[in-house]
Amino acid sequence: MTAPDRISGVLTPVITPFGAGLAPDAGRLIRQCRWLLDQDVGLAVFGTNSEANSLSTDEKLELIDKLIEAGISPERMMPGTGCCAITDTVRLTNHAVQAGCGGVLMLPPFYYKGVSDDGLFAAFSEAIERVGDDNLRVYLYQIPPISQVPLSVALIERLIKAYPETVVGIKDSSGDWSNTKSMLDAGWDDFRIFAGAESFLLANMRGGGAGCISATANVNAAAIHDLFQTWQDPDAEDKQAALDAVRERYMRVPMIPALKAAVAHFSGDPVWNAVRPPLMALNEAEKSVLLDGLAEIDFVIKGLSPPEDQAAE
Amino acid sequence: MTAPDRISGVLTPVITPFGAGLAPDAGRLIRQCRWLLDQDVGLAVFGTNSEANSLSTDEKLELIDKLIEAGISPERMMPGTGCCAITDTVRLTNHAVQAGCGGVLMLPPFYYKGVSDDGLFAAFSEAIERVGDDNLRVYLYQIPPISQVPLSVALIERLIKAYPETVVGIKDSSGDWSNTKSMLDAGWDDFRIFAGAESFLLANMRGGGAGCISATANVNAAAIHDLFQTWQDPDAEDKQAALDAVRERYMRVPMIPALKAAVAHFSGDPVWNAVRPPLMALNEAEKSVLLDGLAEIDFVIKGLSPPEDQAAE
Repeated sequence: MTAPDRISGVLTPVITPFGAGLAPDAGRLIRQCRWLLDQDVGLAVFGTNSEANSLSTDEKLELIDKLIEAGISPERMMPGTGCCAITDTVRLTNHAVQAGCGGVLMLPPFYYKGVSDDGLFAAFSEAIERVGDDNLRVYLYQIPPISQVPLSVALIERLIKAYPETVVGIKDSSGDWSNTKSMLDAGWDDFRIFAGAESFLLANMRGGGAGCISATANVNAAAIHDLFQTWQDPDAEDKQAALDAVRERYMRVPMIPALKAAVAHFSGDPVWNAVRPPLMALNEAEKSVLLDGLAEIDFVIKGLSPPEDQAAE
Repeated sequence: MTAPDRISGVLTPVITPFGAGLAPDAGRLIRQCRWLLDQDVGLAVFGTNSEANSLSTDEKLELIDKLIEAGISPERMMPGTGCCAITDTVRLTNHAVQAGCGGVLMLPPFYYKGVSDDGLFAAFSEAIERVGDDNLRVYLYQIPPISQVPLSVALIERLIKAYPETVVGIKDSSGDWSNTKSMLDAGWDDFRIFAGAESFLLANMRGGGAGCISATANVNAAAIHDLFQTWQDPDAEDKQAALDAVRERYMRVPMIPALKAAVAHFSGDPVWNAVRPPLMALNEAEKSVLLDGLAEIDFVIKGLSPPEDQAAE
């Protein structure tokens, strides 16, 4: 097994389908991953928008195995592996590395708040050293609006210096462009900076970033990847505006159930509506807000697996 | 197995000792639990101050088993069982009920923020119904400064109405007395309201509360339990002030490592200093702040197991 290359491009926190008893539905997930890969979108499975933290470690390990058994390329996978407990983080990260995943997206432990940079450094460092594998590639996951545990620029720099071949990138979902820009400006050698949403994709590419890892790439995969490829073209700003118009419709209602409702709607497969608590599926009024908004801009999702194919899995 | 009685009194989120490789040290935990029970303090193992969220579900299941095998009475245990993933919450809660625990202390799923009361109701309700055992007694765990997921009075009331024999109490670690008072004033029949710290013990007892579940009961067990028993005596306010003076010393430095440093110091057993990241053990300067502060009020902890006993386990 050779060490994975550093990643660039568009990835998405793949939404996780739930079947009977809200159990993860591996068959539907496999088909969704194939559909995303067909459009050159990589698989940041177990992200925030995957409801990863509503899955147990055992459930995640099993899904990784099933994706790979189904022929999904592990090189295209960047599973989220950062948990509250170091033992869970290590178990999941180790499994991902052994499976040949291209990288892992690592949240800091997120229960305790107001922890020190020394404590966060110890958390990442302990995880990296316990896994202890040259093939490990860690992409840090910065998402203070949800985790409530920000990663400072000083902490990131300290991690890069300590593990230059391992800590190779970050997803910045701070929602604050100045935060992304301060990292782009830091001049870290070949450090892969992903915008946390396609809203900042063009700006990020112009600043030397690596792409984006965005929830809405679950539903707008081809167009987002197209801007990644053509960001230097003269019509890039028009393409960015078109992406923004789509994203704005999804933001009118709660995002995770909205992504699932859209996939359910455009595939005709209502199973996709299910979420695990504490999230709630969109109600009918919210669905109308979403679908009416998408209709305003003639937005449709093409090529999703219809229910009859899903049932066949 | 008969259904557990509703709980009142003083409990503590028992600090979790870590040995080699930061593995949970069951032997030391068992001795600490015995010491607490000898002073009539109940065992809210796997609370925030137990670093519960830095332990995997498997580690928690194993510790419950080892405590019970060692003869610790499960009736005196109220393990924390609320995790981010419903599957973890159910597994842990189910195990606690089967083991005969007097109750469980249940956090809401705490990764996603800004979730609706409907979503939180679904999370608790799904957990209760999946466990589906008449012997389950749930004490809700309200700790918005850390979880960042508050439980509204309306939500609590809805849960009590839906599960009157199951949702039987709450630990209020909001740090906001007006929040506790609004619950005491709600008039919920025999609902057990625990202050989240002994700072509010006297006020809580005067308001009809059930006691407290406090981190500092790890280090000041007998005195806190004494105020619980004698709160109607004329010197109760003096006793409350004495408890507050001790607590204030522990608050001068980070609380969880401070509790462990104190136990390490007064038992002569440095193993107790260890914490899991992202927490950090107190440094020498912080230890001096703590121990000098405790010396000002002649505070000592008596009767802890010395290192030679620990090694014998």
